[in-house]
Amino acid sequence: MRSKLTIELSNDGGRPIFLQLVDAVRTEIERGRLKPGERLPGTRALGKSLGLNRNTINAAFSELALQGWIETSPSSGTFVSKEIPTSIAQTIRTTSVYPAATSNFRKPALNFSDGAPDPRLLPRAELAQSFRRALASPAFLSSRGYGDPRGSSELRAALSEYLAEERGIVAPPTNILVTRGSQMALFLAANALLSPGETIAVENPGYPLAWTAFRAAGARIVGVNVDSGGMDVDHLAELAGKVEGLRAVYVTPHHQYPTTVTMGAARRLKLLEVCQRASLTIIEDDYDHEYRYEGRPIMPLVARGAGGVPSVYVGSLSKLLAPGLRVGYALAEPSILQRMCDRREAIDRQGDIPLEHALASILAEGAIRRHTKKARRLYMERRDILTRLLEERFPLGEFEVPAGGLAIWLRLNETLSAETLASRAAALGLSVMPGVKFALDPLVPREALRLGFASLTADELHSAVELLARSAS
Amino acid sequence: MRSKLTIELSNDGGRPIFLQLVDAVRTEIERGRLKPGERLPGTRALGKSLGLNRNTINAAFSELALQGWIETSPSSGTFVSKEIPTSIAQTIRTTSVYPAATSNFRKPALNFSDGAPDPRLLPRAELAQSFRRALASPAFLSSRGYGDPRGSSELRAALSEYLAEERGIVAPPTNILVTRGSQMALFLAANALLSPGETIAVENPGYPLAWTAFRAAGARIVGVNVDSGGMDVDHLAELAGKVEGLRAVYVTPHHQYPTTVTMGAARRLKLLEVCQRASLTIIEDDYDHEYRYEGRPIMPLVARGAGGVPSVYVGSLSKLLAPGLRVGYALAEPSILQRMCDRREAIDRQGDIPLEHALASILAEGAIRRHTKKARRLYMERRDILTRLLEERFPLGEFEVPAGGLAIWLRLNETLSAETLASRAAALGLSVMPGVKFALDPLVPREALRLGFASLTADELHSAVELLARSAS
Repeated sequence: MRSKLTIELSNDGGRPIFLQLVDAVRTEIERGRLKPGERLPGTRALGKSLGLNRNTINAAFSELALQGWIETSPSSGTFVSKEIPTSIAQTIRTTSVYPAATSNFRKPALNFSDGAPDPRLLPRAELAQSFRRALASPAFLSSRGYGDPRGSSELRAALSEYLAEERGIVAPPTNILVTRGSQMALFLAANALLSPGETIAVENPGYPLAWTAFRAAGARIVGVNVDSGGMDVDHLAELAGKVEGLRAVYVTPHHQYPTTVTMGAARRLKLLEVCQRASLTIIEDDYDHEYRYEGRPIMPLVARGAGGVPSVYVGSLSKLLAPGLRVGYALAEPSILQRMCDRREAIDRQGDIPLEHALASILAEGAIRRHTKKARRLYMERRDILTRLLEERFPLGEFEVPAGGLAIWLRLNETLSAETLASRAAALGLSVMPGVKFALDPLVPREALRLGFASLTADELHSAVELLARSAS
Repeated sequence: MRSKLTIELSNDGGRPIFLQLVDAVRTEIERGRLKPGERLPGTRALGKSLGLNRNTINAAFSELALQGWIETSPSSGTFVSKEIPTSIAQTIRTTSVYPAATSNFRKPALNFSDGAPDPRLLPRAELAQSFRRALASPAFLSSRGYGDPRGSSELRAALSEYLAEERGIVAPPTNILVTRGSQMALFLAANALLSPGETIAVENPGYPLAWTAFRAAGARIVGVNVDSGGMDVDHLAELAGKVEGLRAVYVTPHHQYPTTVTMGAARRLKLLEVCQRASLTIIEDDYDHEYRYEGRPIMPLVARGAGGVPSVYVGSLSKLLAPGLRVGYALAEPSILQRMCDRREAIDRQGDIPLEHALASILAEGAIRRHTKKARRLYMERRDILTRLLEERFPLGEFEVPAGGLAIWLRLNETLSAETLASRAAALGLSVMPGVKFALDPLVPREALRLGFASLTADELHSAVELLARSAS
């Protein structure tokens, strides 16, 4: 094969060399000049023959592997995939940046999500097989009515073990409530903790869907400022002194939503102190715990018992797997959890048994852990690619490289309106969320963008940043 | 093989002949004397050689086919299944009536459900395959965030077509909201229709989980009497005249829950009249529409436009498939539906995309229709078996054979307490629901049992009625 690989790379276009290499190899495969199962040259040899840095080759191979065109075996080298990824290829094509002129253009072709994972990475075969097995399991076949509103005992057991190992949280399965995504967990928590008309403090800017859930539960909301260390705890203390009926605080300490900053140890202690003094219950939303790139993840507040402060811990498998798979969970002490369960029973009864069983299997068997490990490595690459692209091609904003999470919070120069930029980008086929979407008071301008990078390939990130730059010019 | 089949049937035990025949054939298969794929004698020949009525042979074959031991091909005869149903056999064994003396007995071995379908009949292979395909579909792989809170457009389109064909309901996909089982649909409907403190009228006896949903939505509840024609509409009219803030009425006209009676045409018209006059919105719960044995199902109120009365129509795929699969739906005019959607978004965001896609496929491809047809035939057989068994072995109660639905409402002689009977049955390993469970005022005795028959095989029905008779003696 080595003699057959003809690659033309150009230095004059704006397109990075490694993406040109990706295209070239993909074209060779699509045209059938590289056959399924065929071995590719080593990165060293290829780098030499093309006059490229080995890192460039590695970046290209990593992208090709992700897209499913090639496979790497640590011992024997790199090969063209035996199964050419038609569905992935199809997906990539349907997200083409430039929609056909004749098509009725509705959906943005490219999407800087708010921080969604990439469903293309999902361990699909394992999940499908587990689902099939769950449908044939005696537990399902003998089910004659309703199950436990806390969720399948298998899934709660698997979660209990997983949370102990991965997050240092000791929670017996009986203290876990499986919900429909974290959305329902937030609604139920507010419902259990607050009487109608009482107040919950939330980060501002923060997570608007949580506010919707709290309001649906009858709660009032008060915003707490956010700075480079996360929630401003002094501001919380001040509010606690003057807001009637303040009962709880909702916080995202690991990677603040939307600014991505991590709350450090000193502020965490101070937060617990304030909550202790003001009798506030904490709702800790640890939505993307596993995606930490610098060092180990920070232990959740609840892992250390939250200093004795009553708390509800909320997590989600949707962030680990795919946004369309709606399974979350909440941990709380029995009296709070019981109230949450009662309400859950009333509005939803219970979850989907076969789906919960299937997720329990792939969690217990390690497929989710393997997936997370792979996804973390890849998402870090994507974070770094977006960082590089923004530095090179988008001088009109600034950002800190996030230590974890699935998004970059890009603050724009004062001359730029984030909303104008977002609407221009939409016209070009790029969806991007301006800062105002995360503001409790939409009249205060927030000239920032939340750029979710995890669900975009290097190729897609490149196109997206190009469109972003065009929208700003 | 014909010469090998040795069957000993006895007439002295209480066990029906056809079940003895089932056991005999199953034993032959288990011992390997009947091989997978082997042809069985025809019913006529077998009846002749055993001296049995052909209907008895048919009943036994039908039971064996259901349990998966044999397969019948219309053109070529009856054969031992190529795949011996280990999991089904296992299920049947784990629901053995007599738990091992040493086992820590917790779960009732047999269960007269409140009217659940049999998950063993589910088109498992089709559903598992559709789920696998849904995970690999471009729509799922390219999902980068949240979807439509009304549910997958594929599923709404398939439901729209299904409801038009099967139930005479014309509803465009945009007027359909896919929910988590009917439970969530009921909660959302009450939430959209009533302000906190307003009242909804419900059937009494009725469906307690609906009451839980309505109360969770902040509504008050008032009970309307039920007689042999369903909800007593005169009583409703009387209440409408005196209850402050009565805004809606919840009704199960097709097979009243729990008494199973069908509301006739005259009363339906009167109901619409009362609602029109008192400005009540109707919530029509048509939870087991397809399971009609005598004639065609009665058209829902909404199919004729509910006489111009505002209405929410609630249905469920869980009743069609399995109680552990939690997908329901609601139809309503746009202004009501929009309020339901907004609240759904707040508490749950949206459904599981792959599961909704998978259900859309098996609905659109006809697998659910084929399943329903098969299930209806079988459930009718089970209804008839339970009817016969109760007549033969349980003289202490009376009932009408229901024209549809999945349960018999058994009224007990005045000398028997339903609760005492249920607790004695529980001690013997049989779960059965006494009438008090369906009463709005639990102090009024309801000496009745709701006996769900659909999820029990003939064999299991036989054991269950034996235990019921022992509990009453």
